Amino acid sequence: MSFEEKTMKTEKIYEGKMLNLRIDTVELPDKKYSKREIVEHPGAVAIVPITEEGEVILVKQYRKAVEKELLEIPAGKLEIGEEPRETAIRELKEETGFSSAKIEYITEFYTSAGFTNEKMHLFLATELTEGAAEPEKDEYIEVIKLDLETLIDKVLKGEILDSKTIIGALIAKNHFENKENN
Amino acid sequence: MSFEEKTMKTEKIYEGKMLNLRIDTVELPDKKYSKREIVEHPGAVAIVPITEEGEVILVKQYRKAVEKELLEIPAGKLEIGEEPRETAIRELKEETGFSSAKIEYITEFYTSAGFTNEKMHLFLATELTEGAAEPEKDEYIEVIKLDLETLIDKVLKGEILDSKTIIGALIAKNHFENKENN
Repeated sequence: MSFEEKTMKTEKIYEGKMLNLRIDTVELPDKKYSKREIVEHPGAVAIVPITEEGEVILVKQYRKAVEKELLEIPAGKLEIGEEPRETAIRELKEETGFSSAKIEYITEFYTSAGFTNEKMHLFLATELTEGAAEPEKDEYIEVIKLDLETLIDKVLKGEILDSKTIIGALIAKNHFENKENN
Repeated sequence: MSFEEKTMKTEKIYEGKMLNLRIDTVELPDKKYSKREIVEHPGAVAIVPITEEGEVILVKQYRKAVEKELLEIPAGKLEIGEEPRETAIRELKEETGFSSAKIEYITEFYTSAGFTNEKMHLFLATELTEGAAEPEKDEYIEVIKLDLETLIDKVLKGEILDSKTIIGALIAKNHFENKENN
């Protein structure tokens, strides 16, 4: 059974710096037409950087879209022609100052597939070396370290509001538990 | 330390059925201006419905934004004036046919706070009764049941591509483990 929706018409509404918006007119399986509002996004990476001591390097930053400061794992958009792994190395350094001798691909997911194609590539970064952060000119970031266990507690208490950070923390926990069991 | 960004100007680009797009000109902490492209979304709910036998009720549907069929927990947008719990009850019934005698609020999170205010409210639904699904006219949905353990395996293998489903599965697992320990 396939429910694929055929594009009958595409209307470009906006082409911007970070995202584009288009409306697709699609043909449904019953041959009727419907509209889909789609936000085009270049994709992004997120990194769970963990020190030898089991601390996660997090960033706190103001997010205008939600009018709140959020505690998040480091992340950033893919630049044109950039491989996710390169983006992960670059963003980790820019946002936190840390470099990693071991960046492992963990998984990837769509942040909100109902309206955007944004795909998030998740990495685990260990064997860290501290250096100076190099934030972009419109980024104001505070680096915060938290034990993985403390972060997981916060996730389970609903204190972490950022989806990629919830996923990164819970998957990192499983990753380390599986390693211990093998 | 506060990095709050003051809105100096707002430009409405698009007002749609499911989302709006606006561009805010903001004042940064160094008093310089920058632009933020923001997708306004009414918010949504997602439900982890689990049967007495430990099976999770999932839905498979085509997502035009990513041009793929995704396996997801049931979910849906908040209607105007609707409480998240009501939306959860309504969407569970519409998409899967199941009713729940026990809907518990689990947590909430932002799907992609870098560009959208979409907030997802997550519920756990147990004590289920099966009935007929009532999908909306432009929704084509297949109901699929998977053991929670099988779903977690798929999450850890990177086979689940939908962020709310990854979060729902991992948090439900922790929820049940904590119950067993108490």
